[in-house]
Amino acid sequence: MRAVDIIIKKRDKQELTPEEIGFFIRGFTNGEIPDYQASAFAMAIMLNGMTPVETTELTLAMAHSGQVLDLTGIVDIAVDKHSSGGVGDKTSISVLPMVAACGLPVGKMSGRGLGFSGGTLDKLESIPGYRVDLSTEEFKKQLKEKGIVLTGQSMDLAPADGKMYALRDVTGTVPSLPLIASSIMSKKIAAGAQAIVLDVKMGLGAFMETLEDARELANLMVDIGRLAGRKTVALLSDMNQPLGAAVGNALEVIEAIDTLRGGGPADFREHCLHVASHVLVIGQRAKNLAEGRTMAEKSIADGSALEKFRVLVAAQGGDVSYVDDVSKFERAKFVEVVNAPRSGFISQVHARGVGEASVALGAGRAKKSDAVDHAVGFLIHKKVGDKVREGEQLFEVHANDRAKLDEARTAVLSAHEFRDEFVPPLPLFYE
Amino acid sequence: MRAVDIIIKKRDKQELTPEEIGFFIRGFTNGEIPDYQASAFAMAIMLNGMTPVETTELTLAMAHSGQVLDLTGIVDIAVDKHSSGGVGDKTSISVLPMVAACGLPVGKMSGRGLGFSGGTLDKLESIPGYRVDLSTEEFKKQLKEKGIVLTGQSMDLAPADGKMYALRDVTGTVPSLPLIASSIMSKKIAAGAQAIVLDVKMGLGAFMETLEDARELANLMVDIGRLAGRKTVALLSDMNQPLGAAVGNALEVIEAIDTLRGGGPADFREHCLHVASHVLVIGQRAKNLAEGRTMAEKSIADGSALEKFRVLVAAQGGDVSYVDDVSKFERAKFVEVVNAPRSGFISQVHARGVGEASVALGAGRAKKSDAVDHAVGFLIHKKVGDKVREGEQLFEVHANDRAKLDEARTAVLSAHEFRDEFVPPLPLFYE
Repeated sequence: MRAVDIIIKKRDKQELTPEEIGFFIRGFTNGEIPDYQASAFAMAIMLNGMTPVETTELTLAMAHSGQVLDLTGIVDIAVDKHSSGGVGDKTSISVLPMVAACGLPVGKMSGRGLGFSGGTLDKLESIPGYRVDLSTEEFKKQLKEKGIVLTGQSMDLAPADGKMYALRDVTGTVPSLPLIASSIMSKKIAAGAQAIVLDVKMGLGAFMETLEDARELANLMVDIGRLAGRKTVALLSDMNQPLGAAVGNALEVIEAIDTLRGGGPADFREHCLHVASHVLVIGQRAKNLAEGRTMAEKSIADGSALEKFRVLVAAQGGDVSYVDDVSKFERAKFVEVVNAPRSGFISQVHARGVGEASVALGAGRAKKSDAVDHAVGFLIHKKVGDKVREGEQLFEVHANDRAKLDEARTAVLSAHEFRDEFVPPLPLFYE
Repeated sequence: MRAVDIIIKKRDKQELTPEEIGFFIRGFTNGEIPDYQASAFAMAIMLNGMTPVETTELTLAMAHSGQVLDLTGIVDIAVDKHSSGGVGDKTSISVLPMVAACGLPVGKMSGRGLGFSGGTLDKLESIPGYRVDLSTEEFKKQLKEKGIVLTGQSMDLAPADGKMYALRDVTGTVPSLPLIASSIMSKKIAAGAQAIVLDVKMGLGAFMETLEDARELANLMVDIGRLAGRKTVALLSDMNQPLGAAVGNALEVIEAIDTLRGGGPADFREHCLHVASHVLVIGQRAKNLAEGRTMAEKSIADGSALEKFRVLVAAQGGDVSYVDDVSKFERAKFVEVVNAPRSGFISQVHARGVGEASVALGAGRAKKSDAVDHAVGFLIHKKVGDKVREGEQLFEVHANDRAKLDEARTAVLSAHEFRDEFVPPLPLFYE
């Protein structure tokens, strides 16, 4: 078998066999197949596509390109939850304690933020001492003993995917559905997931800007899950505007804690309850979504979800006193409330615009090596469909630098659009 | 400007600007743009195509990626002739002396054989002492003083093309018309050509297997020539069966000399006269093809073409006595005449089959580093349309090894097909 013949086959729109895909990914992982062949292969996939069966083989080949976590004997069913990323998406921080409190053990390996999209690890590191570098053994031990883990990738999960992603980024082959889907699913499978809830974001602040694209990606990932023998459910949720009010690391953790305490913005709470009920159903703790939702609501009402979060923070070395007194979180030097420049209905709070403004403030990374400022960010007080009066509070900027505050105010103001006539609120979920 | 954005633009089927193409080729040549970006770019071109204008810009960018030969002041009009390669194609060895004898100075840089297709340089090296490594200064001096040069590439003509070709070979991006056409034309332009006769081969032993593909390639190269301000003519000629009788290095040179002497196989002589008359017209030595043909025929009849070949061989250090006594050429140890296994009309002499058999005998290279045996090869006595009787001489094998002779006999026999009913001869030229 030769790499060039596999490239030629895909170039000529033929379906690849599992052996061919396996050969290519093994060779690429161990360096026998050079980057220049992998990038030509990626472009051929980008332009000629892959069937769900081929995409599943690619997923499995990448998942098995490194160590695969085996959680049998530790949990009855290894569940995972994945969000395709967005602005203000602190869902995992609230949902994991909720489902763990309902008796479904859940361990998750999260990523860091890049570009306008934040990362769970950066957010959690707002809590002093919180470790995101658990070893595989620590991961398993904590999952067994505490029933909840939220850490970074300790091992090199799906190294072929990491290598391929770096290459795709510089060769114009990022927006390929088979490559996106196999990238996401290979990491979930390598992390040991047997059942997966996918939260696919759609809109101005998501990778998929249209409902059609998001639906196609969701369907493909569900196909992969089915063909690979993993229970998989995909939700399509809105990312035209930021999720919840808080955008920024510590601000988002505070909002997630508020939500676990029974408060928090209505949209974010609703989003979490919906995702949690799906996780509970797929993890066989709830018979149906209604039961899952009742369980999740109860975990908030009875304080068990918040308690589970305390357990998580303590287990990973974080200062639990921050959970009980969120005023301890580092605050930005300058906090400015920005009022509505006019009356009307909010018709847009451009998620990507807000996300990029938060990166400019220092909350995110323009490149991987950038440091993150945990204190800065925004609180978005009004969402699409809200009626505002001129002078009413619209959003807050939390900044550590005057000039950046000015820039951020301008940017987030221009992310807002107003109309005189009624604008319906955006749905939280599409399907 | 970023390489990835140029790749993305081509991926999305947009037309690239001259600046973008120039930026990419400059960066690729100097190593700033890595191979993995160039291979993704090549695959995007392969699958999405390029307009003639884009292809011309690519051609010019590659032509100017290194030194460009300037022949002004040396010749009135720098003519070049290019054949897309094939089996038994020794045209340059006969045509250059013919046109030079007609008063049109011509200098050509040729290549070596690779795969089933032979190379002019390998053939010429059958003549002891013949140098194919003239420097640029030697090239210019000989062209001015002798009016004829036939050598290898002394300088690094169009280095971007060399780099790109090596990459295309291993990334499944060889059979792309814009990439093939720009590769050929960039080398011609870098070699200083102002007027170019292209001999595009079509058939079983050519890169282009159908007339449609060959015509498309020919039209594209003529478009490039026009857009780049070079007079360009393309001929479409047959390469279903070998050209002439001889296949193999020394055997082909002997046939070319016979042809210059007024002998040689009828098809090869006719092919040479046709190409020569086009070169004479485009080089402004003949007013039309009929006049060009008369001049070319005369150069054979009066011995001036053969004399010009002597001048060429002597100028490049070759042993001229070989030209006058072709029995001096190294002969293979074993020569076997193979007779027709049956009576009938020849319906096929598979050019690629014969070419591959000659490589197996040692006449060609399977890989670039292989050495070439000058003595071995075939003489194909009967061509498509010929009527043969069982037992009549069909072809000769010239071999230096018994086992290889047996293999070659079998291979070339199976390249022949016979029919009972009349088969018309193949045309030499299609258009």
